[in-house]
Amino acid sequence: MASLTRSAFEALDLDDSLASFRDAFQLPDGIIYLNGNSLGPLPTAASQRVTAAVEQEWGGGLVKSWNTAGWFQAPRRLGDQLAQLIGADPGEVVVTDQTGLNVFKAVAAAVSLRPDRKVIVMEGSNFPTDVYMVQGLLHLLGPDYQIRFAEKDELSAAITADVAVVCLTQVHYKTAHILDMVGLTQQAHAIGALVVWDLCHSAGIIPVDLNGANADFAVGCTYKYLNGGPGSPGFIMVARRHQGQCTQPLTGWWGHAAPFVFDRDYQGDPGIGQMLTGTQPILSFAGMEAGLDLALAADMTAVRNKSQTMGDLFIRLLDERCGQYGFTLVSPRNGHERAGHVAVDHADGYPIMKALIAAGVIGDFRAPATMRFGFSPLFLRYTDVWDAVDCLAHILETRSWDDARFHERAAVT
Amino acid sequence: MASLTRSAFEALDLDDSLASFRDAFQLPDGIIYLNGNSLGPLPTAASQRVTAAVEQEWGGGLVKSWNTAGWFQAPRRLGDQLAQLIGADPGEVVVTDQTGLNVFKAVAAAVSLRPDRKVIVMEGSNFPTDVYMVQGLLHLLGPDYQIRFAEKDELSAAITADVAVVCLTQVHYKTAHILDMVGLTQQAHAIGALVVWDLCHSAGIIPVDLNGANADFAVGCTYKYLNGGPGSPGFIMVARRHQGQCTQPLTGWWGHAAPFVFDRDYQGDPGIGQMLTGTQPILSFAGMEAGLDLALAADMTAVRNKSQTMGDLFIRLLDERCGQYGFTLVSPRNGHERAGHVAVDHADGYPIMKALIAAGVIGDFRAPATMRFGFSPLFLRYTDVWDAVDCLAHILETRSWDDARFHERAAVT
Repeated sequence: MASLTRSAFEALDLDDSLASFRDAFQLPDGIIYLNGNSLGPLPTAASQRVTAAVEQEWGGGLVKSWNTAGWFQAPRRLGDQLAQLIGADPGEVVVTDQTGLNVFKAVAAAVSLRPDRKVIVMEGSNFPTDVYMVQGLLHLLGPDYQIRFAEKDELSAAITADVAVVCLTQVHYKTAHILDMVGLTQQAHAIGALVVWDLCHSAGIIPVDLNGANADFAVGCTYKYLNGGPGSPGFIMVARRHQGQCTQPLTGWWGHAAPFVFDRDYQGDPGIGQMLTGTQPILSFAGMEAGLDLALAADMTAVRNKSQTMGDLFIRLLDERCGQYGFTLVSPRNGHERAGHVAVDHADGYPIMKALIAAGVIGDFRAPATMRFGFSPLFLRYTDVWDAVDCLAHILETRSWDDARFHERAAVT
Repeated sequence: MASLTRSAFEALDLDDSLASFRDAFQLPDGIIYLNGNSLGPLPTAASQRVTAAVEQEWGGGLVKSWNTAGWFQAPRRLGDQLAQLIGADPGEVVVTDQTGLNVFKAVAAAVSLRPDRKVIVMEGSNFPTDVYMVQGLLHLLGPDYQIRFAEKDELSAAITADVAVVCLTQVHYKTAHILDMVGLTQQAHAIGALVVWDLCHSAGIIPVDLNGANADFAVGCTYKYLNGGPGSPGFIMVARRHQGQCTQPLTGWWGHAAPFVFDRDYQGDPGIGQMLTGTQPILSFAGMEAGLDLALAADMTAVRNKSQTMGDLFIRLLDERCGQYGFTLVSPRNGHERAGHVAVDHADGYPIMKALIAAGVIGDFRAPATMRFGFSPLFLRYTDVWDAVDCLAHILETRSWDDARFHERAAVT
């Protein structure tokens, strides 16, 4: 195969059906932002929407905006919209709380449906907050319960007849490897277990069909590929067949069947509303609506194809131009097994990433050695992939990364 | 005593040391806002702060704002500020999550310190989310645990040697009655129990001295008298002597001792950080800072005096001008026993409140018959109290409230 040239990337941009979405984002000049898998950039409409929420709704409407501006209904309204993106039905999703709290609720709800089983299967190498939250839950449930840890190739063997819940993140936060949602769900159901899917690194970047997979529960965040803003609310999906059957323990007043009756005792909403807890951060809700609108407006097949192609091209360019510098590909080379980002290990990954960021190419670093590059198709151009690797190659050729200022560790990386 | 006149209220405004704070708020024209006890109005600086968080921090700084804009540290930084207002020390408070979730964490933490006791004392008539959350917790802890309900005059008798935790809202959400924090805490400690104080209707309106009372835990919200915006984050206080001793079950990655090591297993932060869960809604944090700044700039004794005087005058005017219309005072008449709002019952409270709101006087209604009027001293004038009662008297004299449009029930009231 002939070496790649920048003009080939320019041609891809000219032919890109998603190219116009870039204009909907405010991106700083001189930046190639390969970290939309951590925090998506600002949609221009989000800025306007937040200003309206502050000025007109809070400032002008005051307390009556709970009704007139739809604040109280926001978790259900946005949940119904988000449902379209993840293959759920209206009334099966609410936007609320953070991912970790939603994991706590979803696993507790699943456990409540399988009272005779005490094993939760989880992937120990995936993003730890899901494990931490289940550990907190099991601490309350008592010593009979346990987490059975299994890595991706061990999952099938771990799903045995004593398992209550399989709780998995569909796309691995480090490697971007995609688990087989249909197959694992089927296997869990075959032995009578339930499945909770964490979609943090899936929603908005790969097609997700929860009901097509017959999923039981799902959770996720909106600040990555859905471009919802820093700490924007998470979501939780409960398949309709489980609603009114399961219970979750974070029983706040928004989850009550009649929250404004102010009854003394909790009586859970019979529908998805039972997954709500209490008063939600409305300004952060306002910030996420524009990003969700953009995701819904985009063709998800085109999104997937563009992201996968960008990742494939990134890997090929990295081989061609930086192959001699000691990188190890952590993500699957096969694009069909890989979601939105590409991870590579390098012994000097930390200072190399710092040098890249200083040069305007923003990826991120996960200890001990992993550099992540996210390929969000709504605001990135194919030429950004070329230019990013070009910048990386230059940093490596000149060894400019080996500078004291790039070795200094920040509090949050 | 001679009848009150508006000019007496004008004189009070001229002599009001807090009068200038009103200029820091954006209040709609023609509105008398007596609902700051539900949702405080918009500080002008909050609008600017949110715009900066959206445009410069999210839009311009992108993911690096977790460090450079102090997003990750916001719960501790704002917690240390808020601590000054409630008599806690630096490192004893974090701003995070919502009140209900913080109740769940605080009661679970307190219970973890008293493993041999199974009774939680609560006031059943107070705002229900605290009770609901404890009911959810006890469902996990098992059938040995129970809530012992006691109303204010029954609390002393209910605090017996089998009690693990006394969980009380200091100021009653309906009546504004203030519980004796010092005395009840002392009584609980005397029999070996711990106390969780909910400060939702206290913080920013009456002087609170948690450490002066030797309190164990506290929680609260910031959207009422702290004017933090719709659904702005709550807070939780853990006395330093309990930190590292107690555990709470919502074990998200922000509460880990080393969140960026991404260890597989949860290890709680030894300090107040263990009360954190996961990624926080940053835009809602940005929205609350201005209100907190204003509360910290105000003299709390002056705040308390003005609020109490406004409430006293409101009650006296209501007696004088509306005494024949069938109101029943629900709040304590004695201003020393009453916090920031005044509640009155009326058989037609709902349409009367709707008529008041239509006339620009905004209070709220709590079923079945309670009208609440909040007296936030930072943005209200004494003449607002006069004008509000004047408006109410007119509505009653003309029976203009008895109109079909005022009887129609809204979803959220």
